[in-house]
Amino acid sequence: MKAKQARIDEGKLGAITCDPFPASQKIYAPGNIHPSIRVPLRQVTQTPTRQLGGAEKDAVLNPPVTLYDTSGPYTDPSVTIDIRQGLDPIRSEWIRDRNDVEDLPQVSSRYGKLRLADHRLDALRFKHLRRPVRARAGHNVSQMHYARRGIITPEMEYIAVRENQRMESGLDHQHPGNSWGASLPSQITPEFVRDEVARGRAVIPANVNHPELEPVIIGRNFLVKINANIGNSAVSSTIEEEVEKMVWAIRWGSDTVMDLSTGPNIHETREWILRNSPVPIGTVPIYQALEKVQGKAEELTWEIFRDTLVEQAEQGVDYFTIHAGVRLRYVPLTAKRVTGIVSRGGSILAKWCLAHHSENFLYTHFEEICEIMKAYDITFSLGDGLRPGSIADANDEAQFAELETLGELTKIAWKHDVQTMIEGPGHVPMQLIRENMTRQLETCGEAPFYTLGPLTTDVAPGYDHITSAIGAAMIGWYGTAMLCYVTPKEHLGLPEREDVKEGVIAYKIAAHAADLAKGHPGAQARDNALSKARFEFRWEDQFNLGFDPERARQFHDATLPSDNAKLAHFCSMCGPHFCSMKITEDVRAYAKQVGVTAEDALQQGMDSKSREFQQKGSSLYQKV
Amino acid sequence: MKAKQARIDEGKLGAITCDPFPASQKIYAPGNIHPSIRVPLRQVTQTPTRQLGGAEKDAVLNPPVTLYDTSGPYTDPSVTIDIRQGLDPIRSEWIRDRNDVEDLPQVSSRYGKLRLADHRLDALRFKHLRRPVRARAGHNVSQMHYARRGIITPEMEYIAVRENQRMESGLDHQHPGNSWGASLPSQITPEFVRDEVARGRAVIPANVNHPELEPVIIGRNFLVKINANIGNSAVSSTIEEEVEKMVWAIRWGSDTVMDLSTGPNIHETREWILRNSPVPIGTVPIYQALEKVQGKAEELTWEIFRDTLVEQAEQGVDYFTIHAGVRLRYVPLTAKRVTGIVSRGGSILAKWCLAHHSENFLYTHFEEICEIMKAYDITFSLGDGLRPGSIADANDEAQFAELETLGELTKIAWKHDVQTMIEGPGHVPMQLIRENMTRQLETCGEAPFYTLGPLTTDVAPGYDHITSAIGAAMIGWYGTAMLCYVTPKEHLGLPEREDVKEGVIAYKIAAHAADLAKGHPGAQARDNALSKARFEFRWEDQFNLGFDPERARQFHDATLPSDNAKLAHFCSMCGPHFCSMKITEDVRAYAKQVGVTAEDALQQGMDSKSREFQQKGSSLYQKV
Repeated sequence: MKAKQARIDEGKLGAITCDPFPASQKIYAPGNIHPSIRVPLRQVTQTPTRQLGGAEKDAVLNPPVTLYDTSGPYTDPSVTIDIRQGLDPIRSEWIRDRNDVEDLPQVSSRYGKLRLADHRLDALRFKHLRRPVRARAGHNVSQMHYARRGIITPEMEYIAVRENQRMESGLDHQHPGNSWGASLPSQITPEFVRDEVARGRAVIPANVNHPELEPVIIGRNFLVKINANIGNSAVSSTIEEEVEKMVWAIRWGSDTVMDLSTGPNIHETREWILRNSPVPIGTVPIYQALEKVQGKAEELTWEIFRDTLVEQAEQGVDYFTIHAGVRLRYVPLTAKRVTGIVSRGGSILAKWCLAHHSENFLYTHFEEICEIMKAYDITFSLGDGLRPGSIADANDEAQFAELETLGELTKIAWKHDVQTMIEGPGHVPMQLIRENMTRQLETCGEAPFYTLGPLTTDVAPGYDHITSAIGAAMIGWYGTAMLCYVTPKEHLGLPEREDVKEGVIAYKIAAHAADLAKGHPGAQARDNALSKARFEFRWEDQFNLGFDPERARQFHDATLPSDNAKLAHFCSMCGPHFCSMKITEDVRAYAKQVGVTAEDALQQGMDSKSREFQQKGSSLYQKV
Repeated sequence: MKAKQARIDEGKLGAITCDPFPASQKIYAPGNIHPSIRVPLRQVTQTPTRQLGGAEKDAVLNPPVTLYDTSGPYTDPSVTIDIRQGLDPIRSEWIRDRNDVEDLPQVSSRYGKLRLADHRLDALRFKHLRRPVRARAGHNVSQMHYARRGIITPEMEYIAVRENQRMESGLDHQHPGNSWGASLPSQITPEFVRDEVARGRAVIPANVNHPELEPVIIGRNFLVKINANIGNSAVSSTIEEEVEKMVWAIRWGSDTVMDLSTGPNIHETREWILRNSPVPIGTVPIYQALEKVQGKAEELTWEIFRDTLVEQAEQGVDYFTIHAGVRLRYVPLTAKRVTGIVSRGGSILAKWCLAHHSENFLYTHFEEICEIMKAYDITFSLGDGLRPGSIADANDEAQFAELETLGELTKIAWKHDVQTMIEGPGHVPMQLIRENMTRQLETCGEAPFYTLGPLTTDVAPGYDHITSAIGAAMIGWYGTAMLCYVTPKEHLGLPEREDVKEGVIAYKIAAHAADLAKGHPGAQARDNALSKARFEFRWEDQFNLGFDPERARQFHDATLPSDNAKLAHFCSMCGPHFCSMKITEDVRAYAKQVGVTAEDALQQGMDSKSREFQQKGSSLYQKV
């Protein structure tokens, strides 16, 4: 361990990205059942529509557009961000008011205690540690448990307001969707949220030890969510960089973040991330357990793993990937694959199973894991340790055998009122994607599906954010609730800051394309607003309403840098004398003026109309 | 006009990109019916598979992988490239041998003559102008005409060899596809090519004045093709840059290139591009016609347009976008759209129709256009001038009304044995994409569909190569024959070199994903080879088999730059002690060694096997 030398770079911590988005205001919406909740939304102001040559007083106002906002307090200029202090624990009271948790005198895990006692780590540690809480004996603090008892928690109402925001600003035109059998309501009510959580179709990952969380829901009948993976590795990167990567990922739209760190200080890294994260944090505890046995999979034990679960639970991790479906009997099914087992967790457990020739200890201890999950409200993300790692291996026997087991485990988890989602592939050619979704829905009782991509071809290393955004959009449309991003560095190296952004935006695109295709109420409002701005040459609005205002502006300015160009009624594609959008304005004015319909265009005398138009100067700039 | 000052920068011409791809050889395959044809293919050499700790003599060779190659002679180090001379006119003899063309004493178009006579253009002009040819009176030189008379041209056999290349190296495992009713043969024969061209399901854009062309086929039963748009504009860029953009676009995989130049010297630019292009070149002649009337759409005439067609036909343009479906009666249907008419050609013609209140002159003169097309073998690309420019406007009345007309025009073109494809949208949410394909197939008698994207959402300016690659992959799967690329600069600015590459590779991904999903024979061979290389840590092979070897290497080296890392049996994602692929090697060796199947894993005694494995050292590096 290099822990001795490591310390936090205060300068880097102060340099966390916290600029607001252009023309955007952070607004907070209240609840009805729980009036004290403050649901953050981003409101984008638009400029007025001006006719060319029209007077200023004739300009028509455009309403602000309200957007779902994952970026947390970092984009609110009225909030002072101090990474050393962590975020405001907005959920603390909600959790305490339910009267189901107790304060623990100290952390319970053996490993957690060891780390706290190790003063070589002091320079690295997050200072303002909170005492952990846990369900009181005999209590279950999961959102599913509350939901099943008919209780609408503040978290549930928060989510209803958050998911609904688009509808308040009017729906405009929207195409009917095809939701492949989902049950999208026209409005998300708190009761609907409760009901979906109760029946297991949606999860709210929200550990009672992560009170900084802004609640988010993952389910097929809600907006499609995305996850970004971060994490330092044995090879490179520091704690400060990982905190910034988390803030950076949520800035661009990541709904949850998985910390996949594998270096020597992952315990401390996780604490910094959790205390500063407004989004759910997921982990794969087997990674850390393996570190504890110096990377020797065969030396893993249930006790070490259990201690790791408790350690992470008391830090506040919101969901755990648990590879309990990698059963001994399935391992040999992967032997003939082109790419064998590519899941890290899956391969660790496969190795353990073979070394001991015993059943996977996560499978045999599954109910004990459920006990831990419900004591902290941690959500299962049942890992697909046997997912295909290549097109060739897609939808094979090993993959679907594991899925059957994940279905069984889901039922066990639900018996304990433990929230559960199911992880999915991987690499799948387009024609085989739908089968993944259909089988998952059938096998796992509609528990939310959480897929990695899938990549639709293997032949583009360096561009796997694109190969996989294609598959992600499709499987999101078919019903996947959360899409795990893939960055351009996939298969090649560790994602840097820019790779994280590329991955997040590719996945925001996939998720939004899926929302449109499913017909999620209000999903098209942003498209409509942006397209109207585009058509009216409101360049600033077009930039500001997009997923990446900075890049849009920069790309525009690369060709036409002057400020005037952003007011111009033309663009660089066609130049000033030759613009299709400009000509369309003319068509529209004409159609309106002369009342032309398809029918009378044919029937009325042609010459007179032609003359009329030419007399008016054949100009583009007729006043309407 | 700035023609006076303009001249070619010889230095830039000498700097055209012509490096071969790493570990790649250009090979040429002969024909049977036409033994003299030399079909270029790229052969990628692979390194042997080595077991860790195994002796060099035990390394297992991996066969070379043969790839479709659009890059032309530029990547063949045995060919001397001189842009001033142009490429070798490989088709000249084929064309002359058919005895259907005559040499023209000079160019026929009025405009072409004027440009030749203008000595201010001498410094700008491609020097080695060839005399144009044209069909002799009463002859028809279209590939469709030959096909319908049962003639297998050298172009057709060339294409059969080219499309087939993958199958020679063995098919390996491939998933059954879902081709949505296409008729994919297990092998592409010259007769199949002829038959598909004869019935109009495929086109071979190949102007008799473009003998430099390496023939390519566009049709639903062949590999999905992609097009890249280039072209200088009134605002920026030079001839040399455009030639380099063309070479650059085909290097990364563009099957055809459209020259959409709109500046003052587009006649000369086009000549340089054609003389140096091994791929079909498409244009939108109305753009140039509009330049000739100083941008005033209402002053366009059939005569000016006709002269432009002949001018470009005699330079060798292989396909023309003709917006003959923008009928007067449809124009008012666009008035209520969010984004009106966004096609440049569509809006020019809409303006003309309104100004004259007359039917579109491309529609009324359509049969005369057919006469020109068949005299040079130019393929129609019937433009969708009323395509939607936003999600809101997708699949509307205007769009489908125009499609009906394009269907009628297809039948007229086919009556003249003129090859025809149909252009398609645009902006379409995922759930409405399939309708576009289905309607096009029905309405246009299975003439090849050629779509722009479609973009599946409007909200990501700066990332429209991704929003549209999603739609392109899907519509390619459903049956679109060629996908027109979209670059990251779409809607914002003019694509630069890097944007062209991003766009081309995003579309190669979409096209290949579609080929896999349709089940195109052999399409999966490259995925299988690359995945096998990935699994075996053959880093160099993984880079070289990908669409962009340079970027893959660069991304790998960003994390692990040393040369040793490229021989290492681990990667930066997991580090040396923690690699899923490494562990899988172990699983595989174990399964093989002990003959474990799913059944006996369960039935055999567990302890003995466990002991056996641990005695062998639980090592990752057991020799198989």
